[in-house]
Amino acid sequence: VQASTLSFNVGLSKIAEVSERARVLAPKFEKSTGKPFIYFQRGEVGVATPPFLSECFKKAIEKGCTKYPRLGGEVAYLDAVLADLAASGITGLRREHVMACHGGQEGLELVFSLFRGKRCAGFTPAWSCLFDNIFPYADIDFVSVPLQADAEKGWAFSPAELSRTLAAERVDVFYLNSPHNPTGTVFSPEEVRQIAEICASHGVTLVCDEAYRDLVYVGEHFSPLALESDHIVSINTFSKTMAATGFRIGYVACRNPQLIQELMLGNYTQTAGVSSPTQHAFAEALRHPDLPAWKKAYHADMRQRAETLTRNLDPRLGAVSPQGAFYSFINVGLESAEAEAAAVERLLEKGIAVVPGSAFGREFMGYVRLSFSTLRETLAEGAKRFSDAVVN
Amino acid sequence: VQASTLSFNVGLSKIAEVSERARVLAPKFEKSTGKPFIYFQRGEVGVATPPFLSECFKKAIEKGCTKYPRLGGEVAYLDAVLADLAASGITGLRREHVMACHGGQEGLELVFSLFRGKRCAGFTPAWSCLFDNIFPYADIDFVSVPLQADAEKGWAFSPAELSRTLAAERVDVFYLNSPHNPTGTVFSPEEVRQIAEICASHGVTLVCDEAYRDLVYVGEHFSPLALESDHIVSINTFSKTMAATGFRIGYVACRNPQLIQELMLGNYTQTAGVSSPTQHAFAEALRHPDLPAWKKAYHADMRQRAETLTRNLDPRLGAVSPQGAFYSFINVGLESAEAEAAAVERLLEKGIAVVPGSAFGREFMGYVRLSFSTLRETLAEGAKRFSDAVVN
Repeated sequence: VQASTLSFNVGLSKIAEVSERARVLAPKFEKSTGKPFIYFQRGEVGVATPPFLSECFKKAIEKGCTKYPRLGGEVAYLDAVLADLAASGITGLRREHVMACHGGQEGLELVFSLFRGKRCAGFTPAWSCLFDNIFPYADIDFVSVPLQADAEKGWAFSPAELSRTLAAERVDVFYLNSPHNPTGTVFSPEEVRQIAEICASHGVTLVCDEAYRDLVYVGEHFSPLALESDHIVSINTFSKTMAATGFRIGYVACRNPQLIQELMLGNYTQTAGVSSPTQHAFAEALRHPDLPAWKKAYHADMRQRAETLTRNLDPRLGAVSPQGAFYSFINVGLESAEAEAAAVERLLEKGIAVVPGSAFGREFMGYVRLSFSTLRETLAEGAKRFSDAVVN
Repeated sequence: VQASTLSFNVGLSKIAEVSERARVLAPKFEKSTGKPFIYFQRGEVGVATPPFLSECFKKAIEKGCTKYPRLGGEVAYLDAVLADLAASGITGLRREHVMACHGGQEGLELVFSLFRGKRCAGFTPAWSCLFDNIFPYADIDFVSVPLQADAEKGWAFSPAELSRTLAAERVDVFYLNSPHNPTGTVFSPEEVRQIAEICASHGVTLVCDEAYRDLVYVGEHFSPLALESDHIVSINTFSKTMAATGFRIGYVACRNPQLIQELMLGNYTQTAGVSSPTQHAFAEALRHPDLPAWKKAYHADMRQRAETLTRNLDPRLGAVSPQGAFYSFINVGLESAEAEAAAVERLLEKGIAVVPGSAFGREFMGYVRLSFSTLRETLAEGAKRFSDAVVN
């Protein structure tokens, strides 16, 4: 075996490609124009982590929480997660129903690896990392159920089409992400219930990616975990809810303890578990008296950014104000791969980095994703510059 | 798909089984006899992490090292690792040759997953987690090259047999662990060179698990990374070298950047990388002025435990003093699975938990592994009690 022939058949997404181009072009742009380069491509959170996290870590380490983590998660962490879920109305869960994982990424990777070789359906557009990494890694065959642009709701799905696809394509698992990356859609409680019912009627496991659960500006987040079903798996992370992307901590929850037990064995096999001090620090942080105020300010900040973006985009773009998460997915009418690549490059030259729509599904070639999470002072200017560049 | 039919086909080792029995029996034993229960089964490190680690964490977080980690590892971490390797004489490596991983566990899991479906040979006895988790997870076909008990050297291998096996079994990758779990053997620099040459002559990639590199009491650790070969991969962790098992941080090093690039993509897919604050904290800790003194004291402590164990075991057991790591692998002459299970249970009832030899390879049914890393005050008493129980 030559090392050069060994491959996981995964790659980095177009987001990484755009970021690399931006890294090269931004200094030139800023030097020649005196204007700031606008990084609309980033999925990072542009807010500092809660200031008390460093103390929580110090305390965890000084208490000696430095030894191998317990299989599936430290008791203190699982209990803090359960309390947090209970506070949001999700009850009836016990320790055996939750597992610590290295952020949403590992949660999704493990769940789909457990479904290795099987078929997954999901709404598109969808998070690019699924197509570039998670599905090929787990040898998952993906079937797209395209969302339809809707002037009023932003993006909508057809229950009939969902049902038809699940049956006709012999789907094993459905991926639902709400609040939704890349469209910013928040599916209503009624919609989520309906999706869960359709999945149940076809014997399909529902995997819910709730990474953006705390970032809802319009409507209400409904966690399918509230439903009494063994076939619903929820993937959560503190990356977005606590602006803690670098800490790599989250959890998987499911009312079927057998499924959690298998995921624990996968998690153990891959990494021997999530860092003990990190688990204890977050257990402490989740109960910290300053957390509610921090969350409130963070939410207000992000909502304001969503509004700033929408207000400063040209109305002719027809962009719907993001209901949640920190993205806007906008039709700029590109019709070929070449046109898309040329448009992205042209925007880069005008000092704007965006992610091309095709990264989120072949069908979305005409779109681009703008992320507003790392921009504040330059957001209005960026929205205007983007509008000028694409509306003409 | 019913969740109950989904499985990774991995399990927990006999070590976990023994630990669970010990958890139940220890309180009864201690209550009825007034003597301490002796936990010889643990692979944990019974020493506190360096006291300056908590400050390193606090500093990393307060500096804002809280965002998504860089693909493959933060620059500060990789540079600290490279400096540490250079200090031990391993030069010519650059950032592209090293990758941060979640401890040795993820390093091994990723490397073997890259060799999915291929054939691995290795000396036995071998770390039980390979058989229980890592090999089945990556669908690796394992071929055993049994070590021979040697009165003088402890355990020895036959170069001719190694060569024969690699050729006859069409092996793709060889797993070498030195210092060695479970025998405590440290392969000499000459032996390691010879193994590397034999692997090279058969086009076999050499995967070296150097988890115990700093725990050598007799002889010298030689890292095969010092050899100029693209086909040598070294897996390292700070779990044992810094008594930091709970932090889940280590690194993979290889002179072939293509192989590291693939592993980075696997690491990214699985977890999006190792916690940024953890990487920065360890980068700082590796350069901390108190580290050398801490390491010296830790090493002296562990060496003394190795000596205490050997001195207090009955000489009739023929136990060789551990040359490295923190294990002793002792022949107690059991000849069937039933006899082994019965002996382990009998020892538990006498207040001693050990791991049965078969956990480390079918051929080692007659042995048990004693770990001395978590015992200090009770180590001599434990060694005597164990001797009394098995020598008769």
